Amino acid sequence: AKPRVGYFYVQDSSHLTDFNELYNIKLSKIKSVPVVVKEETSVYNAIVTLFLEDVGSLFVIDDDEALVGVISRKDLLKLTIGETDINQVPVSVVMTRMPNIITTRDNDTVFEAAEKLVNYEIDALPVVENLTDKAGVPLEDKLKVIGRVSKTNITRVFTDFGLEM
Amino acid sequence: AKPRVGYFYVQDSSHLTDFNELYNIKLSKIKSVPVVVKEETSVYNAIVTLFLEDVGSLFVIDDDEALVGVISRKDLLKLTIGETDINQVPVSVVMTRMPNIITTRDNDTVFEAAEKLVNYEIDALPVVENLTDKAGVPLEDKLKVIGRVSKTNITRVFTDFGLEM
Repeated sequence: AKPRVGYFYVQDSSHLTDFNELYNIKLSKIKSVPVVVKEETSVYNAIVTLFLEDVGSLFVIDDDEALVGVISRKDLLKLTIGETDINQVPVSVVMTRMPNIITTRDNDTVFEAAEKLVNYEIDALPVVENLTDKAGVPLEDKLKVIGRVSKTNITRVFTDFGLEM
Repeated sequence: AKPRVGYFYVQDSSHLTDFNELYNIKLSKIKSVPVVVKEETSVYNAIVTLFLEDVGSLFVIDDDEALVGVISRKDLLKLTIGETDINQVPVSVVMTRMPNIITTRDNDTVFEAAEKLVNYEIDALPVVENLTDKAGVPLEDKLKVIGRVSKTNITRVFTDFGLEM
């Protein structure tokens, strides 16, 4: 007998799952705590912070707490084998600067974040929101870092969802 | 009307996808090329290799091409800020050694690999097979590295599968 419209015969539906559930998880639910340093922090102290906090990337902020740069383990490793005096040089000299930083928002999905990580070949994304002025009006070009999403977060979401199945 | 056994009413089944398809992808299909160095390679040359090959981890092999160690960007960064003379010290002194290396096989799934990456907090897994003696008999404790699977591979599988939906 032909199944009626709207009915689908499946031998075992237990392995059919709604992918939207996985791919549309909001970053607000899975982001990690960001680790930030000031622009004048030395490369050496940035590396120490990286190990103390056990993260792969640091976000660099100015005195207004606005995001101004990102520096990764890869950037730092490259510096340590060069001629740079890592005790003297501040991270601001070597970081990736605004507006070249790829960012995400709380309301973006894990799918969108994963695509950015893959397409731009980066390890971690800052989750940002706009800073506001004293009247509470959002400042368009000033971003506050409120989280961190890396390939580790994506891999963890992937396994956690698999375990729940 | 009650749906009959074996029939399930779904308003829109287009977003229901077989998760096994994603989670059971074999590593043979998604692994990357491994980058290997010899035990006597200096830490400095290992770092140079890491940048030339643009990978996050190196696998260390002995003269029989058997896997003896793994060294990550994190291990190398730690060394560069210490007292170690990275031009003199070979990677064998600082690598993670067998039998403490977490490995995977071609026939393992992306889910199994992702779980290992998360649970052991590592960036990359060597994909291995047993080396054989001259008669073709597998040697139980000698592993040949035939691939590399990192959080980048997992993130890419995740996005590629999402794009196909």
